[in-house]
Amino acid sequence: MKKVKVITQILDANDQIARENQRILGEHHVLCVNIMASPGAGKTSLILETSKALAGRMRTGVVEGDIASQIDSDRVASHHLPVIQINTGGECHLDASTVQKALKSLPLAQIDLLFIENVGNLICPVEFQLGEELRVAVASVPEGDDKPYKYPGIFTAVNAVVLNKMDLAPYVDFKLDAMRKGVSSMNRKAKFFEVSCRTGDGIGPWADWLETRWRAKSAQSA
Amino acid sequence: MKKVKVITQILDANDQIARENQRILGEHHVLCVNIMASPGAGKTSLILETSKALAGRMRTGVVEGDIASQIDSDRVASHHLPVIQINTGGECHLDASTVQKALKSLPLAQIDLLFIENVGNLICPVEFQLGEELRVAVASVPEGDDKPYKYPGIFTAVNAVVLNKMDLAPYVDFKLDAMRKGVSSMNRKAKFFEVSCRTGDGIGPWADWLETRWRAKSAQSA
Repeated sequence: MKKVKVITQILDANDQIARENQRILGEHHVLCVNIMASPGAGKTSLILETSKALAGRMRTGVVEGDIASQIDSDRVASHHLPVIQINTGGECHLDASTVQKALKSLPLAQIDLLFIENVGNLICPVEFQLGEELRVAVASVPEGDDKPYKYPGIFTAVNAVVLNKMDLAPYVDFKLDAMRKGVSSMNRKAKFFEVSCRTGDGIGPWADWLETRWRAKSAQSA
Repeated sequence: MKKVKVITQILDANDQIARENQRILGEHHVLCVNIMASPGAGKTSLILETSKALAGRMRTGVVEGDIASQIDSDRVASHHLPVIQINTGGECHLDASTVQKALKSLPLAQIDLLFIENVGNLICPVEFQLGEELRVAVASVPEGDDKPYKYPGIFTAVNAVVLNKMDLAPYVDFKLDAMRKGVSSMNRKAKFFEVSCRTGDGIGPWADWLETRWRAKSAQSA
């Protein structure tokens, strides 16, 4: 009971800071997308390919969350995108407070689309609101088509599922119909995109969807 | 500070139950292996292939840990192995207490090798001792060769790393040398096995190592 009470207090405090983040992002007309996935599903690759597809249409910035290392932020910076690395130490998720510090260091006036790449983990990140507009799960073909049934929390909570590594489908036992059925059984409203960050296939419709969401948000706040 | 104190109390209580589990397993001469990995790295496939390789040499049993579903335990049971499914609800790891309940339901006198398949997560499971003799991380080629640097906690804590899905190496950008270097930079003592559960390649040496460890443990306690 004590554990439950402490966790509830932590989540309440987090939600309050998440609302502040949402206000800051709104003032700058930034569409903020929380990208959640297993380790190695291709979160960073998706961010980079999406940023390329939207070049000239939306300006991308990135917050990179990892337990340790700055491998991902170095990779993002090499593409000349503004990026802040958060190392959580041992924490299995980002929280609104660490994201707020990152927001204060980013040139928000020059960013239209802010990706927050969460720690690689299909479970813990979903509990913590960060102030994002959209929550996205990246799944990947080699992980298998049963993930929605095994990790219902995340698949229930997201606005979209991006299925990456479609180029590996010929080499593994993956049933696309089973995956689609699993996602829709958890979440009827979630958009579903099939992509390959390696070949670029499918990135267009996903990027277009983000731009549409950004324009709708801007029109709303105008 | 309050959060830290509560977590320390939880871990202390867990360790005490883990020691009881260790005693129970020791009485039955069971080698217990805690299998930890990202979602979809191939934990269940590795367990099944290892059990096949050891047929006639060691009798395998399985504890399956998942947030939800009994997909994995159904799969294990179809191979006529004794198996108990633990569904954690939302918890991101197994703990010693839930494992103890599973031990009480398993025919331990008929098991030499007990695999505990932890929840798919590279971060949280490592904090919780279960009473196991060996801790093993399963990595997989499509996840990428940078995982040891991004998730140092687990790679530091294990007795062995099994790199699965070697059959996909020709189709992805994976540097085996970088992976090996990453593992050894975190943990010089960890054994490193390259396998493909799809083709069966490399399962032999890994299974032999487990048998050697079991015989050494049995000799020690005799």
